[in-house]
Amino acid sequence: MNVSQASVHPVEEDPPTTDGANNPPRARMKVIQGMPGTPGGLALRVGQFVLAVAALSIMATTSDFPSVTAFCYLVAAAGLLSLWSLSLAIIDVYALLVRRSLQNYRVVILFTVGDGITSTLIFAAACASAGITVLIDNDLGSCSDSHCMKFETATGMAFVCWFTTVTSFLLNFWSLASR
Amino acid sequence: MNVSQASVHPVEEDPPTTDGANNPPRARMKVIQGMPGTPGGLALRVGQFVLAVAALSIMATTSDFPSVTAFCYLVAAAGLLSLWSLSLAIIDVYALLVRRSLQNYRVVILFTVGDGITSTLIFAAACASAGITVLIDNDLGSCSDSHCMKFETATGMAFVCWFTTVTSFLLNFWSLASR
Repeated sequence: MNVSQASVHPVEEDPPTTDGANNPPRARMKVIQGMPGTPGGLALRVGQFVLAVAALSIMATTSDFPSVTAFCYLVAAAGLLSLWSLSLAIIDVYALLVRRSLQNYRVVILFTVGDGITSTLIFAAACASAGITVLIDNDLGSCSDSHCMKFETATGMAFVCWFTTVTSFLLNFWSLASR
Repeated sequence: MNVSQASVHPVEEDPPTTDGANNPPRARMKVIQGMPGTPGGLALRVGQFVLAVAALSIMATTSDFPSVTAFCYLVAAAGLLSLWSLSLAIIDVYALLVRRSLQNYRVVILFTVGDGITSTLIFAAACASAGITVLIDNDLGSCSDSHCMKFETATGMAFVCWFTTVTSFLLNFWSLASR
């Protein structure tokens, strides 16, 4: 099975062929825990997925979220992020199972751009929802009429979700710059 | 005047002393336009300052902005960002006038952290204000009663301001990683 020419490369230990010792050493990105293809990276992706699904579910269970654009946007952003994290978690599981590194330049560019976009979207959604929640709670004082608790919990989940996504983004961006 | 030991280093051209040719070459960060101490960096800082002051002024001229927490937060974040950008613009002007490079590792860490914090704050403020503005305009349809146009303009300014700040942050982070 010749898959080494594409976006995946064999990791240092356990080389599949024995004649590889004579090849010159290839330029390789430094691997830090949390990058794609590492157990830390998989943990980050699983965390992102769980938090995004939690934010989406909590917001979607309130009856009056569709009346506020920012809450609909939070549901959409959390949905997109959960799909993105799930895809990358599956890729990480595959890379860990077949013991391959995902530190290819183009793959890391793709992951960095994707993480940048999804983290910006979820942060924007979380901030917009937080603005509305604070307006309802502090400025209008009408928290008893609505599902304030659920809105606040979903917003908090989205913020923690952003924190894990921006960690992935910064790690990928770092590995891209320090190649 | 012996200032080369501190956080500033002479740039390549026009060395102040003639005996420097015998010293071994020092590890130096790659300079990209837009980084601190470059004309591009100064232009970015001036742009950030002008946009932040514009957002602050437009929001502060509305009479009812203190009744919404998100709008007060936008004024505070824009005020902080304008001070930060002004300080860094002055440092850039100094570095350009005395022809010195600001690519010292600790200085770049400081600038990166500062840009990261201020860009996150202004983006959060812009998103929260956008959430409220969309709520007033689309969801409640009560735009005629309030200063919608001014709120929207201030929010737009804050978004453009975030764009210039995050550019500075990414350039600094890149130069930090690729040192």
